[in-house]
Amino acid sequence: MTAQLEAPVLSEPASPSASPSAAARDADPVFALHRGGKVEVVSTVPVDTREDLSLAYTPGVARVCTAIEQEPDLAYDYTWKSSTVAVVTDGTAVLGLGDIGPAAALPVMEGKALLFKQFGGVNAVPICLDVTDLDELVETIVRLAPAFGGINLEDISAPRCFEVERRVQDRLDIPVFHDDQHGTAIVCLAALRNAAKLTGRSLGDLRVVVSGAGAAGIAVSKMILEAGIGELAIADSKGIVHAARDDLNDEKRLFAAISNKDNRTGSFVEALAGADVLVGLSSGTVPVEAVESMAPDGIVFAMANPTPEVHPDVAHAAGARVVATGRSDFPNQINNVLAFPGVFKGAMAVRATRVTEGMKLAASEALAAVVGDELSAECVIPSVFDPRVAPAVAEAVAAAARAEGVARL
Amino acid sequence: MTAQLEAPVLSEPASPSASPSAAARDADPVFALHRGGKVEVVSTVPVDTREDLSLAYTPGVARVCTAIEQEPDLAYDYTWKSSTVAVVTDGTAVLGLGDIGPAAALPVMEGKALLFKQFGGVNAVPICLDVTDLDELVETIVRLAPAFGGINLEDISAPRCFEVERRVQDRLDIPVFHDDQHGTAIVCLAALRNAAKLTGRSLGDLRVVVSGAGAAGIAVSKMILEAGIGELAIADSKGIVHAARDDLNDEKRLFAAISNKDNRTGSFVEALAGADVLVGLSSGTVPVEAVESMAPDGIVFAMANPTPEVHPDVAHAAGARVVATGRSDFPNQINNVLAFPGVFKGAMAVRATRVTEGMKLAASEALAAVVGDELSAECVIPSVFDPRVAPAVAEAVAAAARAEGVARL
Repeated sequence: MTAQLEAPVLSEPASPSASPSAAARDADPVFALHRGGKVEVVSTVPVDTREDLSLAYTPGVARVCTAIEQEPDLAYDYTWKSSTVAVVTDGTAVLGLGDIGPAAALPVMEGKALLFKQFGGVNAVPICLDVTDLDELVETIVRLAPAFGGINLEDISAPRCFEVERRVQDRLDIPVFHDDQHGTAIVCLAALRNAAKLTGRSLGDLRVVVSGAGAAGIAVSKMILEAGIGELAIADSKGIVHAARDDLNDEKRLFAAISNKDNRTGSFVEALAGADVLVGLSSGTVPVEAVESMAPDGIVFAMANPTPEVHPDVAHAAGARVVATGRSDFPNQINNVLAFPGVFKGAMAVRATRVTEGMKLAASEALAAVVGDELSAECVIPSVFDPRVAPAVAEAVAAAARAEGVARL
Repeated sequence: MTAQLEAPVLSEPASPSASPSAAARDADPVFALHRGGKVEVVSTVPVDTREDLSLAYTPGVARVCTAIEQEPDLAYDYTWKSSTVAVVTDGTAVLGLGDIGPAAALPVMEGKALLFKQFGGVNAVPICLDVTDLDELVETIVRLAPAFGGINLEDISAPRCFEVERRVQDRLDIPVFHDDQHGTAIVCLAALRNAAKLTGRSLGDLRVVVSGAGAAGIAVSKMILEAGIGELAIADSKGIVHAARDDLNDEKRLFAAISNKDNRTGSFVEALAGADVLVGLSSGTVPVEAVESMAPDGIVFAMANPTPEVHPDVAHAAGARVVATGRSDFPNQINNVLAFPGVFKGAMAVRATRVTEGMKLAASEALAAVVGDELSAECVIPSVFDPRVAPAVAEAVAAAARAEGVARL
């Protein structure tokens, strides 16, 4: 999901049931803005004279090709590789729309490319792959990698996404990052750190319930456990994930082993009783009584898009101290754009060969720290337009890459 | 080959034998220009406010995705597809450098992207594929096609390139064009038309000898035969291609059947005796005596790069009336950039599903016609910087696409 972004009204349907007419499209500022696409490829060098051509193209270019053939790392110096990522999807889990296919996913990938450039100064190329078989998807991504300095995986359905990322990263020496997992996790953890600080608790003090065991739910759960959360339970549509369930995929099974220490069973709502934190990453709703059943100073991240699992006003009235959503029209917007531009900017600046857990944790800490003295119940996470965010995240990620020995610069 | 471009001195080696030192690179204006790459991806819409984000990204973008899912052709209206091609290589036949691999090919693909934008207004994305198996190469290109409105194949070795193009085009409903073949052929035929006109002959009057049976040699031969050339023989390193040879690949075998009607055997030089036209697309040399043996008003296209098969001054002294090369420092530069920007611009303007033979012939005729009253022995083809070229080619290609029923607009 790149699904944690703005939504003007709670009641707006995620997916209209019929295609809009040409007249309806013409009257819609969204379609007007999208006409002809949102990104383009432009030259950074002049091509106005024969001399220009002889430098940028033949015969001059042959010298650069030969140098790279002989010293492959020179591609980072003399091509766009050092600042360019592929934003790769198979179109199987696009926003909240589901499996709409690669062509229909293109507007989202172009949007992502926009954000990469705007916030991280990174070139991003939308790549929409017409392949869904897992082995073939992995092979295809590996094959198209040489022209890129990083791979941002996007909107690939769970649980395939976990194995795709793992296998592609194993085959390549450039950062591979499934944003729906790790972007969400980095931003969630940053907000959680600040919410804990605000309420005078450490991460180890908190009992967390995560609703949703898709790509984002699994990644957030892993990351906050690594960061030292006290206790965590994760719930899917069948209820709390526990070891006795026989309907778990590999990722959920792993989770049954490392989470839910007091071995709770039953529904998500039951698990919320006495919990400190609710992390909502599903499309469901949370009854007000369940929020009321949480411990004092409750922390509610209701990130379903476009309709949060519980309205912030309702959550506050039910006793929650800190409420965050994926939306721009409420305080505390948890949005992946706070993470991925800086993560790639930093990783690529030092030519990191991968994105390690330490780099993600460093990104999250740096993001949380940007809030600084502005910390309040309405500000546990910076604005997506805060210009300090991407540089701070990039610097922390680059330093962590060096510390962990995955940097080549 | 995009190999028909500028070379400042005849003696420059095509491939230096050792990688240049850092100091040598720093002193070389070619490397200075290449630092950081030659193209970038930029936004065409603003992303400065929450309102901007809500239009270009979520939640607005979901409406565009859904519309494309329901009406796939809307991708042409509301994404960059309508103006964007993938420049795809496997790095097996790059310039005159040969099989240098996908990463080392990237500077050439970036150069191509420059030229696409500069001359055709087309966005081009460098895609360097780490795969050489023919079946896998075809599959990979087909899978990455959804985000693009056309596929420009580049620097893929012969004879694989013929089957790759055929099979990819059979699977896709967007133009697929192997520039090394058809770009060269379109420009060659245009120059040949004008050279024939200048010397008062029709194409049917001409006997042509083509030296080189790689991608360009085969494609030029096919195209000039289709255009009505009188008689043609093609020669590879073993001599003239004829039906009794047992060392021919499929493409050459086809040629043995449709060319060389008087069934010549022997060397390329022998075939030149009495010929009207020499088309050089090899890396060999042509002895002055062979040029002297040609018919009066000889036409010599010596396109080997960077060293023409025969120096223009020598060819003229040996009796040639019209001489063309791939170089910018002699008259009559035969350069693919005269073709591919206009071909894609025109094909994509009408959403053509493929590039037909008729579209290529129309491109060639339009290119030849740009010369107009300026026709002379020193001007059988326009300058690569002539601003009339791409629009004229695009218009002709679009009209031909409509006439042949492959246009969707």
